[in-house]
Amino acid sequence: MPSETRIPLFNADAMSPVAGTGKRTYVPATRVSFADRWLLHTLLRALGDPAIRFVLWNGESVYTAATEPVGTLRIKDRRTLRRLTYRPELEFGEAYTDGRLQVDGDLVRVLETAFRAPVHPWVERLLVRARRPRANTLGGSRDNIHHHYDLGNEFYRLWLDERMVYTCAYFPTPSASLEEAQVAKMELVCRKVGLQPGQRVVEAGCGWGALALHMARQHGVAVRAFNISHEQITYAREQARQLGLSDRVEFVEDDYRNVSGQYDAFVSVGMLEHVGVEHYRELGRIIDRCLPAHGRGFIHTIGRNRPLRLNAWLEKHIFPGAYVPALREMMTIFEPYGFSVLDVENLRLHYAETLRHWLARFERSADRVATMFDERFVRVWRFYLSGSIAAFSTGSLQLFQVSFARPQHNEISWTRAHLYQ
Amino acid sequence: MPSETRIPLFNADAMSPVAGTGKRTYVPATRVSFADRWLLHTLLRALGDPAIRFVLWNGESVYTAATEPVGTLRIKDRRTLRRLTYRPELEFGEAYTDGRLQVDGDLVRVLETAFRAPVHPWVERLLVRARRPRANTLGGSRDNIHHHYDLGNEFYRLWLDERMVYTCAYFPTPSASLEEAQVAKMELVCRKVGLQPGQRVVEAGCGWGALALHMARQHGVAVRAFNISHEQITYAREQARQLGLSDRVEFVEDDYRNVSGQYDAFVSVGMLEHVGVEHYRELGRIIDRCLPAHGRGFIHTIGRNRPLRLNAWLEKHIFPGAYVPALREMMTIFEPYGFSVLDVENLRLHYAETLRHWLARFERSADRVATMFDERFVRVWRFYLSGSIAAFSTGSLQLFQVSFARPQHNEISWTRAHLYQ
Repeated sequence: MPSETRIPLFNADAMSPVAGTGKRTYVPATRVSFADRWLLHTLLRALGDPAIRFVLWNGESVYTAATEPVGTLRIKDRRTLRRLTYRPELEFGEAYTDGRLQVDGDLVRVLETAFRAPVHPWVERLLVRARRPRANTLGGSRDNIHHHYDLGNEFYRLWLDERMVYTCAYFPTPSASLEEAQVAKMELVCRKVGLQPGQRVVEAGCGWGALALHMARQHGVAVRAFNISHEQITYAREQARQLGLSDRVEFVEDDYRNVSGQYDAFVSVGMLEHVGVEHYRELGRIIDRCLPAHGRGFIHTIGRNRPLRLNAWLEKHIFPGAYVPALREMMTIFEPYGFSVLDVENLRLHYAETLRHWLARFERSADRVATMFDERFVRVWRFYLSGSIAAFSTGSLQLFQVSFARPQHNEISWTRAHLYQ
Repeated sequence: MPSETRIPLFNADAMSPVAGTGKRTYVPATRVSFADRWLLHTLLRALGDPAIRFVLWNGESVYTAATEPVGTLRIKDRRTLRRLTYRPELEFGEAYTDGRLQVDGDLVRVLETAFRAPVHPWVERLLVRARRPRANTLGGSRDNIHHHYDLGNEFYRLWLDERMVYTCAYFPTPSASLEEAQVAKMELVCRKVGLQPGQRVVEAGCGWGALALHMARQHGVAVRAFNISHEQITYAREQARQLGLSDRVEFVEDDYRNVSGQYDAFVSVGMLEHVGVEHYRELGRIIDRCLPAHGRGFIHTIGRNRPLRLNAWLEKHIFPGAYVPALREMMTIFEPYGFSVLDVENLRLHYAETLRHWLARFERSADRVATMFDERFVRVWRFYLSGSIAAFSTGSLQLFQVSFARPQHNEISWTRAHLYQ
């Protein structure tokens, strides 16, 4: 351990001269106590001694890793330190966005370093007792979705691709542009579902409508697309009108639980995160109701390697009611109805790349965003996008594309080679 | 319902004239009682009225489906009917192999028809209370494996491909030969694992060694391959010697639980079925122990759409101790160790095709098999192979290939396109 990493439990630097007296004594505003140092030490041990330098409110520096630091966290007051120790997941984001925690260096790299460090089991327990997600009743879902997706299309247009696709893109090569990658993702989805001209498709959670419009335009299918975000549905309908697709793409402002009718395919991209694990069986029942014997299903969702609540800060400030499932939990959608899982692909590195594009575009428009909202909003979104990059690039979050069908349906693809031709 | 399908609860045909008396009375040897007819009726309703004609021991025909029958089942005595009703899964196979149940028509088609019919929930309950699989302790596994895989290499050589691969093949096109398809499968596995020359691979359950030899020869890796079947290991070692690969492929006659050392890749094809669900966490611990940070894992196994015990006849007569998992259950291997599932492919139609090749070759050697064993053995194997075709072709069984890696390992394939080049 380099000498600088030693934590002095009593630090002479913490004692400042009181102006005019010539005496050295404790100044309460900047005092760092034995308990403060012990707390920080405990926190760092619990976080697996990440290569991040911590600087306390009195300027005292604490560093416990053996390698070079990737950045510095400045903790502005004791309350922040104590909250960080008690509930690091929630407080990191809250203190950062309040300005009580300052990050020197690249925020994404600092977060990746924190995510990569081997975490002590009691921190995992802290994570698990993270916030219980808000309820996803019909009304609850509407409030939860409104909170995030109705911030204004103008805002999202600043940093999404031109088609307004707000889900993980698919980069055929890492150098593809975001625009290319979102089209490639939509095309991949269509191929995985095996769309044929003339088929009828239902889409649950359609965002600003890009996928529904792509399916209709490129594959000649008719689509009914559901969404409870008023802003998104309004935008999507306008797009359909401009593209002359209003007769083949119907945008329905309603909850997935109200999907009726039968379709050749059920498609859902980036909605499952908002369904809530307690509603998976119900979602399965709806898919079961709307798919005939030859029906094909497809769900694209953020996921986990094992069941764990969503990051508390994210659930509180960005995605109320959200929960990202482990594959085991997703089986609750399929098993009761005997659906056969045909294909699962994990695209987590593609989501990290997608988010890097979004963050870069967001930063280029940060001044504009501050004018539209305020500086705090900019910090909230910077933290959300940066933390998401770190979560996907370090394997804390996954992106699962799951294709499924009725168990006795034999007209399924013989191999997956056609996805890559 | 056609008139012939009506079930006469009292049937004059069942009353035979007693020779010489001129009187019609019941003849006990061929008597079909009210209870017998009621039982058969109940059985057919429970089985979802499959398009199969039933003929009782007195020649009485019963048929309850609306479409043309695909075949006829002749039930030779009351005991067989009663057992069929009580435990259809077990008794169908036992009666068939005893000769107490005769099938007129194509056995595979008859079984597919039975599997496809919509089954009444109480039959599902009967299936679930199927035999509890025999234990897979270290000794138990050795006995269980010996039972099936040590029947003699001479026997398996009669109907497997030239490389003796006894797992699902991969047909790039449905017209590929079995030999081509087994090589294509081995190549697909190597690509999914991302083998690089010079790497070290551990294989758990290596059969007659074809995959281990393929990996060493085509991809320049060193392999340690484990198997507890003495006959298979002896054969595999001889193959390695003949191919001059003994220095790079080590065949170890030992249980997967005794795998030691660290490897770049863990590969297991067709062993999980013999592990038993109660040992999945232990298997995960072994994989965790032998994979470094950059390690890649691959498991190929028969699976289910939802948890259900293995067909009782199969567990009793073919694969003692076997259990085929639902994806949910497989997660018990990965979740406790944080492994990240990268790819799941369901190849069930390829297994149906593989089995069709095996059955055709087996039938061409049936006389030879009868000489090596006996006629009953031929019927047991015919029923096992036919039933397996039906199970895969009707979606009762799945074939899952699962690729996984350490959660923070980012040198994973960017897309799956390289699998198809």
